[in-house]
Amino acid sequence: MIGVAVLGAGRIAQVHARAIQAAGARFVAVYDVVTEAAQRLAAQYGGAAEASVDAVLARPDVDAVIIASPTDTHVDFIIRSVEAGKAVLCEKPLALEIAEAQRCIDRVGDRAAIVQLGFNRRFDPSHRALQQALAAGEIGALEQLTITSRDPGPPPASYLLHSGGLFKDMTIHDLDMARWLLQEPVTTVYAQGSCLVDPAIGALGDIDTATVVLRTVSGKQCTILNSRRAVYGYDQRIEALGATGMLVSGNHYETSLLRFSAKSAGAPTALQNFFLDRYADSYRLELVDFLDAVHAGRSPSVTMADGLAALRLAEAAQQSFASGQVVTIA
Amino acid sequence: MIGVAVLGAGRIAQVHARAIQAAGARFVAVYDVVTEAAQRLAAQYGGAAEASVDAVLARPDVDAVIIASPTDTHVDFIIRSVEAGKAVLCEKPLALEIAEAQRCIDRVGDRAAIVQLGFNRRFDPSHRALQQALAAGEIGALEQLTITSRDPGPPPASYLLHSGGLFKDMTIHDLDMARWLLQEPVTTVYAQGSCLVDPAIGALGDIDTATVVLRTVSGKQCTILNSRRAVYGYDQRIEALGATGMLVSGNHYETSLLRFSAKSAGAPTALQNFFLDRYADSYRLELVDFLDAVHAGRSPSVTMADGLAALRLAEAAQQSFASGQVVTIA
Amino acid sequence: MIGVAVLGAGRIAQVHARAIQAAGARFVAVYDVVTEAAQRLAAQYGGAAEASVDAVLARPDVDAVIIASPTDTHVDFIIRSVEAGKAVLCEKPLALEIAEAQRCIDRVGDRAAIVQLGFNRRFDPSHRALQQALAAGEIGALEQLTITSRDPGPPPASYLLHSGGLFKDMTIHDLDMARWLLQEPVTTVYAQGSCLVDPAIGALGDIDTATVVLRTVSGKQCTILNSRRAVYGYDQRIEALGATGMLVSGNHYETSLLRFSAKSAGAPTALQNFFLDRYADSYRLELVDFLDAVHAGRSPSVTMADGLAALRLAEAAQQSFASGQVVTIA
Amino acid sequence: MIGVAVLGAGRIAQVHARAIQAAGARFVAVYDVVTEAAQRLAAQYGGAAEASVDAVLARPDVDAVIIASPTDTHVDFIIRSVEAGKAVLCEKPLALEIAEAQRCIDRVGDRAAIVQLGFNRRFDPSHRALQQALAAGEIGALEQLTITSRDPGPPPASYLLHSGGLFKDMTIHDLDMARWLLQEPVTTVYAQGSCLVDPAIGALGDIDTATVVLRTVSGKQCTILNSRRAVYGYDQRIEALGATGMLVSGNHYETSLLRFSAKSAGAPTALQNFFLDRYADSYRLELVDFLDAVHAGRSPSVTMADGLAALRLAEAAQQSFASGQVVTIA
Repeated sequence: MIGVAVLGAGRIAQVHARAIQAAGARFVAVYDVVTEAAQRLAAQYGGAAEASVDAVLARPDVDAVIIASPTDTHVDFIIRSVEAGKAVLCEKPLALEIAEAQRCIDRVGDRAAIVQLGFNRRFDPSHRALQQALAAGEIGALEQLTITSRDPGPPPASYLLHSGGLFKDMTIHDLDMARWLLQEPVTTVYAQGSCLVDPAIGALGDIDTATVVLRTVSGKQCTILNSRRAVYGYDQRIEALGATGMLVSGNHYETSLLRFSAKSAGAPTALQNFFLDRYADSYRLELVDFLDAVHAGRSPSVTMADGLAALRLAEAAQQSFASGQVVTIA
Repeated sequence: MIGVAVLGAGRIAQVHARAIQAAGARFVAVYDVVTEAAQRLAAQYGGAAEASVDAVLARPDVDAVIIASPTDTHVDFIIRSVEAGKAVLCEKPLALEIAEAQRCIDRVGDRAAIVQLGFNRRFDPSHRALQQALAAGEIGALEQLTITSRDPGPPPASYLLHSGGLFKDMTIHDLDMARWLLQEPVTTVYAQGSCLVDPAIGALGDIDTATVVLRTVSGKQCTILNSRRAVYGYDQRIEALGATGMLVSGNHYETSLLRFSAKSAGAPTALQNFFLDRYADSYRLELVDFLDAVHAGRSPSVTMADGLAALRLAEAAQQSFASGQVVTIA
Repeated sequence: MIGVAVLGAGRIAQVHARAIQAAGARFVAVYDVVTEAAQRLAAQYGGAAEASVDAVLARPDVDAVIIASPTDTHVDFIIRSVEAGKAVLCEKPLALEIAEAQRCIDRVGDRAAIVQLGFNRRFDPSHRALQQALAAGEIGALEQLTITSRDPGPPPASYLLHSGGLFKDMTIHDLDMARWLLQEPVTTVYAQGSCLVDPAIGALGDIDTATVVLRTVSGKQCTILNSRRAVYGYDQRIEALGATGMLVSGNHYETSLLRFSAKSAGAPTALQNFFLDRYADSYRLELVDFLDAVHAGRSPSVTMADGLAALRLAEAAQQSFASGQVVTIA
Repeated sequence: MIGVAVLGAGRIAQVHARAIQAAGARFVAVYDVVTEAAQRLAAQYGGAAEASVDAVLARPDVDAVIIASPTDTHVDFIIRSVEAGKAVLCEKPLALEIAEAQRCIDRVGDRAAIVQLGFNRRFDPSHRALQQALAAGEIGALEQLTITSRDPGPPPASYLLHSGGLFKDMTIHDLDMARWLLQEPVTTVYAQGSCLVDPAIGALGDIDTATVVLRTVSGKQCTILNSRRAVYGYDQRIEALGATGMLVSGNHYETSLLRFSAKSAGAPTALQNFFLDRYADSYRLELVDFLDAVHAGRSPSVTMADGLAALRLAEAAQQSFASGQVVTIA
């Protein structure tokens, strides 16, 4: 049974801790700068709350490490975990700066083969069914890809301040999804950003509404629609037009109840409103896949190179937004 | 070009008059006891308002007659039209009493081959697509058939008084639909009726809510759900379960607009609310089919025998409701 | 923390065992006539595999017992558990015969207040949302209730032999649902049964296709549509028509993928195909509710009286089917 | 009764001719360079086939002229009709070149008040319901607008040669829709074009797949997705995200039939496949609105200025595509 440690004891760390046992592994240890948080998690899932990252990495019963700590610790923790011989599942983003991500990759070198990056949405059963149908040739050659990704409401200013901005914090998920589905190099990026939801977001130098258009080397077109606010719930859709059909990964609803009244003949309930509900399965299946890779000694499904590539596109979107011009990818 | 006369100048007569030209025929004459109604219709569509049924039937330029007058005139007008050598499209029901319907059939004899009965719903493109898929074997042998048929709101008491009661006025459409889709003899009928919508309907000795269950000779099961009130619109659905699949003819909406709000993620607009909107196509296509039969000299798609058979089932439902027992069909 | 034991170690027992920890309780012990099955379950979830029911009931750390053994053991195990002072959650049905169910209730007497019956579907979030909207008056007075409940495919003959027949095995869930939603006494039952899916089922004296119609004291109408085979998946729907609207608890899909092709503009994936997937949430929430009742010392949400009442309706359906006549409930 | 003449006797001319009577007006005359086409139309709808445009315009019984001739005749026919004192409904586009459109507007001057431009989609009941809900403030301030507009299949090369290219031929409808819904000036246009459907289209110097992104003065974002091929049918959708909700004008289906099988739990039929079916209502209602404007002496709902503005945006899209850069609108 694989022994797993978690670095960080916040919201995402809890999601992983809960899933470890169900995935057939053992929750061994946890570390967080907030000692009580680590102790609470340890008490709940039966592992040890260690006093330092080193203490965690020193344990021989830790085979794999899940990094769910703040973004600015990712690169350091990856390097230390890999050097301690542990397999790693690191939450996205790899880093906020390309140079930092590149440094991590360079340092880790060949051992990157045991580092999985947490673009969990690739494991969502609906998105994955779309990807598999696409890969199986169900709609022929892909022509237009549209990814709609809108949060129910904006996060607090405290979060936004350290988020790296909309493109690196939110769009980056969609850029990874685009890369996964387009399966060929992106050549140009055009991004439009507006502050339409909350002036406070603009005051932080950030945006809350974005449209990003990618173009691939063969002329495939991809549009990403982002907003920090969709009052009807967490709006997560993918639409892929191909030569012989279209695939749509639609939204997920809280229940299957429909209401019929004099005003409407079949109003559904709201969408699932929280990303941990909407993507509960994808977090679970991501872990299953990671543990399977560790167990089988195979390469992870999502790599640090994927993290770097998504970050490059986010950076290009940022540049396009800032300049108002189209950015060409080398 | 086929010359068509209309007997009656009410709501349904207008529907037919409007459709005649579009169907490639000529609107020649109209008669109604209310002279002004006939004159208005004639003025609008270019035909003559005749002073009597005989005057209409005496016209050599009348090849076909559409009977859209009150139910108690149907049998008389059919007989006279047939005897005058005219093809006939008669609105449902053929009659309110079985004996009367039988008398009509007996009297008309072989000439029934030129009388079409107006069960227009058989021509509705959605219902017809279901019927064709069923006939093509898409779902294998039919096992359970469910017909939901609910009006937006009850008709006025003046109408109900002469309607023949819910089973003969409203259910009869669904009984014809059932016969058309089941394609084998019905052996038992069970009907439940309640007055839940409006006590005034009960005061007339009628009901407003009914559940009717048919069984065929091979054990196929059919349920009809009727109500005089569905506040969300005119609810017209058919669901057919078969050995290898299910077919559903769903409702029709006023527009394709969906509303997303904090309460609901995609509320459609109301259903089409009026039977002349919902079944506009079926009235139109019924006439096209009738004119085609006249032109080709072929038998009509829906016959007086269909009218009589539906009436027998409605009568059985009435008996079952009255007795509270299951009625066996000879 | 409440200590829970499980009697039986089969499929449903596993579902409960898995859910106990997640619900904040402790899985303490298990018993099954098949010793290895009990041992496997104990090994997986950390409890003890006891050699007898008595050994389980003798444990002071067992506060509550979940009975997931064959139906013919239910009454005996309930009585023994209650007499040992344990709270009980017993899988449906309470018994296959009314006399047996009545005997259980009589024997348990006042202590019935600690026995919950496992009609888990009442805890399904979609069905429950419908029930709550109904109870909140969203559609006014209920008039017609339609419950569609079809299995993906028939169970093996070995299961059917001891199932008690379609009405007591399958319809009983829907009858409980009907009682829960109708909220008033049923006065008549009409049931039609056919063997259309598999002649082998008929050879066992059972049926595979049924239509059951209930009528309540105030004239509300309820239809239940059952089949042992729906090739498109596990078809579980409820539709409630009321004076001011309609509520529909719709089906659940495997994913939210829609496929568009030259043949179809938006084909969804299949329905969830297995009852343990479709009702995973309801099993989980049922246990949460049971543990809450135990913890709070309150009466269970679903009682043995509910089990007996559903069984009476199933018996009436059986009689109606056998006689071909409507059965009046005393 | 308003007397209407039609210039042109092709496909669209037929649509208008058929609708004139139903809209309560009189079809008086028709002209087409192909004399037989004009004669056929005249025979079918009862008007006169005139030998020249002048002959049509000389008729005192012609109050209004519908221009449904090739695009390169539009400006000339508008000017001559207006100078003859006729009200005009002219098919889109006003012209293929901005200078030509401007010349028409300049020449017509104040009399533009009697010229309506045929952007019929504004009259589509679903799109219009969206526009009205938006105007009524149902979703608060508009933030992101997405218009998906895909043809079932590419038109013949003979058509494409004279079409003016994808942006002026196809996107122009969506650009008008965008202007109608955005209700504020567009400041930048970015357009991407690809030839992915048919190399023959590329050989003509045209494209078949386009993504166009507009930005308004207040930062609202609008995306238009075009393709010359959607094998699942004529894909016409509008999605409007606002501060308090979202509105979607969805696709229209051939029938409401859903198919359930082992592969899919509810596959709809294909989309309406032909623009004259999908937009039948909008052509009809456009004419009703035009006749109402003529009758009431009011300004038309869609003006030549609208035609020019849409053409300017199409031209900007063309420039953006050609240069690969964002185009700023003066």
